[in-house]
Amino acid sequence: MYRCSKERMSEKIKTFSQFGDAGHGGITRYTLSPEDIQARKEFQKRMEAIGAIIEVDDVANMYATLPGSDPHAKRIVMGSHSDSVKNGGNYDGILGVLSAMEVLETVAEQNIPHKHPLTAMIWTNEEGSLYPPAMMVSGIVCYDYLPEAIRGKFQYENMLKSKSVLDSTGTFGAALEKSGYKGDKKYRLNPEQYQCMFEIHIEQGPILEDAGNDIGVVDCVLGMFNYRLRFYGQTVHAGTFPMPKRKDALFAAAQAICDLHKKIDALGYPELVYTTGEIVCHPCVHTCVPDYVDFCIDVRHEKPQVLDSVLSIVKSCAEKEWAGCRCEVERMWNRDTVYWDKTLVGYVKEAAEEAQISHQYVHSGAGHDAQFVAYMLPTTMIFVQSKGGLSHCEPEYSSPEHCAEGATVLLNAVLKADAD
Amino acid sequence: MYRCSKERMSEKIKTFSQFGDAGHGGITRYTLSPEDIQARKEFQKRMEAIGAIIEVDDVANMYATLPGSDPHAKRIVMGSHSDSVKNGGNYDGILGVLSAMEVLETVAEQNIPHKHPLTAMIWTNEEGSLYPPAMMVSGIVCYDYLPEAIRGKFQYENMLKSKSVLDSTGTFGAALEKSGYKGDKKYRLNPEQYQCMFEIHIEQGPILEDAGNDIGVVDCVLGMFNYRLRFYGQTVHAGTFPMPKRKDALFAAAQAICDLHKKIDALGYPELVYTTGEIVCHPCVHTCVPDYVDFCIDVRHEKPQVLDSVLSIVKSCAEKEWAGCRCEVERMWNRDTVYWDKTLVGYVKEAAEEAQISHQYVHSGAGHDAQFVAYMLPTTMIFVQSKGGLSHCEPEYSSPEHCAEGATVLLNAVLKADAD
Repeated sequence: MYRCSKERMSEKIKTFSQFGDAGHGGITRYTLSPEDIQARKEFQKRMEAIGAIIEVDDVANMYATLPGSDPHAKRIVMGSHSDSVKNGGNYDGILGVLSAMEVLETVAEQNIPHKHPLTAMIWTNEEGSLYPPAMMVSGIVCYDYLPEAIRGKFQYENMLKSKSVLDSTGTFGAALEKSGYKGDKKYRLNPEQYQCMFEIHIEQGPILEDAGNDIGVVDCVLGMFNYRLRFYGQTVHAGTFPMPKRKDALFAAAQAICDLHKKIDALGYPELVYTTGEIVCHPCVHTCVPDYVDFCIDVRHEKPQVLDSVLSIVKSCAEKEWAGCRCEVERMWNRDTVYWDKTLVGYVKEAAEEAQISHQYVHSGAGHDAQFVAYMLPTTMIFVQSKGGLSHCEPEYSSPEHCAEGATVLLNAVLKADAD
Repeated sequence: MYRCSKERMSEKIKTFSQFGDAGHGGITRYTLSPEDIQARKEFQKRMEAIGAIIEVDDVANMYATLPGSDPHAKRIVMGSHSDSVKNGGNYDGILGVLSAMEVLETVAEQNIPHKHPLTAMIWTNEEGSLYPPAMMVSGIVCYDYLPEAIRGKFQYENMLKSKSVLDSTGTFGAALEKSGYKGDKKYRLNPEQYQCMFEIHIEQGPILEDAGNDIGVVDCVLGMFNYRLRFYGQTVHAGTFPMPKRKDALFAAAQAICDLHKKIDALGYPELVYTTGEIVCHPCVHTCVPDYVDFCIDVRHEKPQVLDSVLSIVKSCAEKEWAGCRCEVERMWNRDTVYWDKTLVGYVKEAAEEAQISHQYVHSGAGHDAQFVAYMLPTTMIFVQSKGGLSHCEPEYSSPEHCAEGATVLLNAVLKADAD
């Protein structure tokens, strides 16, 4: 049983929070931006200082590796992403990088014997804030291993053309060329050289905090689907058109949102989450009855049969008129539940037990790079308690104690995997 | 009893529909655009051809005047606007200009005796499509006569700075300078020179069509209010945050829209119209629970007590939480019902009766330049049946028969006013 250093973790969090500091407690650090490159340089400097070898692949992923005692053993990789959303917090993504660095620093400092090379990794463009989609680069790297349904989205050539949402002329490919971080494809994460992967992430939910547990032993990433509901009405003048003849697409959508809540809640699945986060209204003018509204519904649960029962409610919306409007329901995407490698999950649990760190099993509701890696390598995740469950916002916070505990669990779980 | 020419009206509608023709049955003719200037030139050419004198004021309103037999009599003005919304139809606004032209052409052709000078007028920027707000220029011209509550919005100097919604550098003032239609302030419509005003407009509603009447004798512009309802929730991750702890601002807004419909409909006022046409959602991302949503409600009815009873329902939304979200209700603007001049309304009705054109009293639900003029001069409006009640869209249509009937009613009502 080894322990990581709370002081060192704390200092790293503080230092990396400066790269993209937005001035009120959080950061904006888009992938391959000057701020992201500051973080990458700091990563390289610190990892080289402890004798790690740096490699960069062709999609700017960075790998810092400490050699192990067995020249034939495969690498064990730990990591997460260094980019953030706009006005995000100081933990989402980067905590997984800092924890991997902390593990390597602890191993180097305490001279901890290990057979396998140990790698700390930075994933490029997980958030997709500037160049959609999210998890772009893990999608590219794991492409050959992905299920057919997911694959179509992540073809390398198309991804390079992904347009910046800020600069209409910029693409991900252009940013990559310009960054100086377009390395060699041969360094990409691959199953010949790598044995398994661990990713630490903040929980982004309140379950650990509510239960009073510091660490989450993650067992899966929840299955989900995203559907779009479209309502077709008629634009008429707000002041002149009698109510009974109207076909109001916004009223239709409002009714459908309320109806979906009523019917889905009636299913009675306490762990089910569903969200109507995005709405589009046309023409969206105060003097016009809207002729078109759509919204999306994102639904997540571990069990396919639960998702199926919600899906049939969603689909049934198209079977009737809403406020005189026709409704269409369209699948945008979905994924099955991805279960982490049982052996690795076991190592994480044992490590937490041995270190007497309070913990529990949790599911991941959000997607992470690790979920694509899981199709290629044995993979698992560790969650660190999030204050108030907040994330993707400036008040995002995990205490130095919990962050150091996360690194300690990671270190000891990695050493268990190293003993295989 | 004189009659206008269906053929001549029809030809004018066809000709003016070319100025801004969008290629699929309608027009886009922003104020002072090259297309609008084509329409203005055609207006000037045709009016000069019958001996009318052209004047242009400092906000590009155009006046074409045929002198009357009494050198001391004030002018009687007829007109509407030449601009359209984006992808609008061939009737909204321009029909009022063409009808005024038709009246002058009929008077000239048939040598109809008249005491008062008769003026056909083009109003600038009624739609406010490019430079908000709507009815900008009638607001400027009638400024000194407007009620205090409306006045604030239409100060000349501010209006000149109104920004183009298409071109971030352009203002209404710059467009005016560039257009060549910035004339002399002394020509503005004013009560010293003008006796009264008539405006023909398409109905923009289905009441005349449903009743089988060709012409609407308009008695008022409905009073209205516009309020904004704002809902404050919390952004959390769609995949990780348990349902019972959420504060979903879009679900809150959807519930409020449904509740407003239920409660307002229960009041049982058949002539009441209300519209939630505009909605804003933040951050409007499929993986986030929205933390802020607002929508507007536009409510119109003739009677203040009816508006008051709806307003108390709208205001009561702020008294409770919706899906865990706080609600704020804010007044954006309101207006009292504007009644047209009773004498002029009577002339319109008599003119329709004498010409044996089917007609009925109607209210105007929409706003028009005439409603600001009504604070300065005796004013009234005539509506022409709209097919399907559609307007502000390409299928907008009124038949040549109905348009010619409208001009006939206008001509004979004007001659009654001339006899005063």
